[in-house]
Amino acid sequence: MNLEQGKKQFNGILEKIRAYRHSSSLMYWDASTGAPKKAVNNRAKIQGILAGEVFKLIVSDEMKECLEILEKERDRLDDITNAMVVKMRKEYNKFTKIPSEEFRQYAELLGKSHTVWEEAKNKSDFSIFEPVLEKIIGTLRKFVEYRGYTGHPYNTFLDDYEPGMTTERLDEFFAALKERIVPLLKRIQNSDKIIKTDFLDESYPTKIQEEFSHYILDKICFDKDAGMLKESEHPFTINFTRNDVRITTHYYENKLTSAIYSTIHEGGHALYEQNIGEDIAETILGRGTSMGIHESQSRMFENIFGRNMNFWKHFYPKLVEKFPEQLSNISLNEFYEAINKPENSLIRIESDELTYSLHIMVRYEIEKMLIEGKVAVKDLPELWNRKIEEYLGITPPNDKMGVLQDVHWSDGLFGYFPSYALGNAYASQFENTMSKTLDIDELLKAGQFNEILVWLRENIHKHGCLKKPNEILKDVTGEELNPTYFIEYLENKFEKLYNL
Amino acid sequence: MNLEQGKKQFNGILEKIRAYRHSSSLMYWDASTGAPKKAVNNRAKIQGILAGEVFKLIVSDEMKECLEILEKERDRLDDITNAMVVKMRKEYNKFTKIPSEEFRQYAELLGKSHTVWEEAKNKSDFSIFEPVLEKIIGTLRKFVEYRGYTGHPYNTFLDDYEPGMTTERLDEFFAALKERIVPLLKRIQNSDKIIKTDFLDESYPTKIQEEFSHYILDKICFDKDAGMLKESEHPFTINFTRNDVRITTHYYENKLTSAIYSTIHEGGHALYEQNIGEDIAETILGRGTSMGIHESQSRMFENIFGRNMNFWKHFYPKLVEKFPEQLSNISLNEFYEAINKPENSLIRIESDELTYSLHIMVRYEIEKMLIEGKVAVKDLPELWNRKIEEYLGITPPNDKMGVLQDVHWSDGLFGYFPSYALGNAYASQFENTMSKTLDIDELLKAGQFNEILVWLRENIHKHGCLKKPNEILKDVTGEELNPTYFIEYLENKFEKLYNL
Repeated sequence: MNLEQGKKQFNGILEKIRAYRHSSSLMYWDASTGAPKKAVNNRAKIQGILAGEVFKLIVSDEMKECLEILEKERDRLDDITNAMVVKMRKEYNKFTKIPSEEFRQYAELLGKSHTVWEEAKNKSDFSIFEPVLEKIIGTLRKFVEYRGYTGHPYNTFLDDYEPGMTTERLDEFFAALKERIVPLLKRIQNSDKIIKTDFLDESYPTKIQEEFSHYILDKICFDKDAGMLKESEHPFTINFTRNDVRITTHYYENKLTSAIYSTIHEGGHALYEQNIGEDIAETILGRGTSMGIHESQSRMFENIFGRNMNFWKHFYPKLVEKFPEQLSNISLNEFYEAINKPENSLIRIESDELTYSLHIMVRYEIEKMLIEGKVAVKDLPELWNRKIEEYLGITPPNDKMGVLQDVHWSDGLFGYFPSYALGNAYASQFENTMSKTLDIDELLKAGQFNEILVWLRENIHKHGCLKKPNEILKDVTGEELNPTYFIEYLENKFEKLYNL
Repeated sequence: MNLEQGKKQFNGILEKIRAYRHSSSLMYWDASTGAPKKAVNNRAKIQGILAGEVFKLIVSDEMKECLEILEKERDRLDDITNAMVVKMRKEYNKFTKIPSEEFRQYAELLGKSHTVWEEAKNKSDFSIFEPVLEKIIGTLRKFVEYRGYTGHPYNTFLDDYEPGMTTERLDEFFAALKERIVPLLKRIQNSDKIIKTDFLDESYPTKIQEEFSHYILDKICFDKDAGMLKESEHPFTINFTRNDVRITTHYYENKLTSAIYSTIHEGGHALYEQNIGEDIAETILGRGTSMGIHESQSRMFENIFGRNMNFWKHFYPKLVEKFPEQLSNISLNEFYEAINKPENSLIRIESDELTYSLHIMVRYEIEKMLIEGKVAVKDLPELWNRKIEEYLGITPPNDKMGVLQDVHWSDGLFGYFPSYALGNAYASQFENTMSKTLDIDELLKAGQFNEILVWLRENIHKHGCLKKPNEILKDVTGEELNPTYFIEYLENKFEKLYNL
């Protein structure tokens, strides 16, 4: 097989992988947004078959042969093919170590686990989810032995979502956050300042909330011809290509900001995917490069922009117009303070940006222990509650508000949570660089997101997987990961809010 | 390879085929019910890849090998495996007898022909479509020589949709319809009776129409945990397994009955699929056995039940309750007459149950002539108009309302139309047998569909593809295809309606 034949065969395999993954993703979307209940078993079976075919293609002799031919002639390859070879080599190496039948069984397990988790959460009964989670953890612990690891076994999972990340670095990272955020939080807790938030929990008809979510998406330049917003139990983003990026939110009648921030958050993810370069759109490189960089985009929109006074100078009048009964007596400043008040919430996705990292720390520590086998699955509710109490000073009243709140584990997503905390740090670093050429405050005040989007597209979005996370960070900001920007951002913001 | 290995390999191939078809169907569903506009190109690409993989699996050496091994030991196979072997042998033969290059060229032709037909229809100019249709017919005439046939070459196409059906039988069938329905229609056309229908075109808020559609589906025992109703441009049914059967309807504010009858029609299809036997549910046999039997279920619900006075004795008060302003001055009898008034429409999909089969007869006669080479494609518009005039007493003013109205020929669907007419005849035969053990009128009057559904499930639905259409017909009714029941049903109904 010569180089041209190798490229053709390689592309043929990747197109099939893309087709099967696309199919499986659509089934996930469908399941989360309204598929009939009884469809669950057959869907799991089909998803198992598709995952099995993807697996076979990745570990196939044909793939191996293609990779070898293309790697030998790396200098003659264009950048896109080169990046695809690097990406597939990593996947090939990752999966050739796992026996295919075990992988198939795992995929089938994950096909069913989501619904089990949902039931467990609805009934607030961890024991429903326990046996499934036990199987997931057991499988992952076996897999990491097959796959191998450097340092801590958890590093292998971290690397899946944030290439190059290690527990050593993360331990340091969280230590730095803890060192300055915990004291800041204490100072706030000791402050006499009272911030009213009760007006956010009045009755806000969900139909109007939905209109406002669509309004915000339009303003931040979400392309509705290349995506859609729906409702699901747990908000998420799913992307097929830059031309089909779907997000969900969840409307609660008595929690005005829940849907707003889910929409803005997922909207930030969606903008990343919708602005991938056209040259790589319909290839395996046509998606965000890592979970951490992805999260930097969602959190920049959710927090740095979405909880900014200037953002609300533009959007608050519109919100009052939608809910005059509930908000016309609330000033912009009262609203701003309310949406930024640290609540020590029990729920990660509803927690404030100050305590958010503490929620992640709990999950990070527990995941590390699970992968090491240092805690039994049945003991998770107790361990969870203990840690939440230790970091946030509150105790979950039930599993629904505690260990069952997140969907991730039911999807086998271990090593994923730290990306959220990294995203916050990256976002602050990016924003710091952006502010050198754009007057962000003025743009937010005017509700103008075009220039911001162009900046993000050119610096981050368009590259897709053509650049590694750390490469983007260095090319854009001139620095590696540095939590200082994020910490200082929080200190400035909350010291001002509480007159500390 | 021994028998057990052969069975395992065979099932493995079938599971993959099922997975890819499932995926492609979900994309179709998604596209029809709201996927973003810009997703179209990538979706077409993915569906092309999936269809290609299905094709490769069907004609593969592995398939051939499995079929040979299993066929040799037919006596040792269970009924389900046996039926799967017969089904796949048919598909294998169908696709392998045609030289692959010719098949590829034909697929390419069909890829373009739809657009040409669309343009021709929009411009109401048959000459635009003529050369493409000529090529399609030419190809199909060649293919039927490759594939072989018994009796008339058209039999091979009939067999694709209605296994075992022949022109000999259909000729008789349509002759019988022509002999009695055409005169009946003439008598109606000469009748003085005036039936008012204008109240059906008043403003009926679509939201309430939707509620009523759901109400009907609930009453006829559509299982919402195993399916759903949504809206799309053209109503359709799509089935994954008995546990996931989805239907659509379309609400027009000024056409009350359009959505009602689309919902009942698709509901009839859906009940068939939801009541397939559990033993074959997740196999390639787990679906309706033929287009004709399928259509018998949808038309039984749409026409025999759904346009029945007793049905509306139950449902009409509910409908009036939903639309008091529009209907409280309309009596049940006025409503019944309006929904049954023959319209002599030029358009098949808008025609009534009396004239529908005549529309099909025109297509059947023309298709047979085309396959025999007894009519030149260029002469079709004239032939079409002559036949429509003869059977329906009206003349199409242009090709758009005439020979160009249906999409089927541009998609190569020859032999498909007769299923629609067969469905009507089967439905009447089934209903006649059912009426010997069930008091259908009383059940309809009470809005009780449970017993009816049990009857249909036990006699028809549960068998899926385990029984051939004619086998079902004979087992249930004791007879082969017999149009008398359908004809008498029409005569009784319309003679009474028009006091003839």
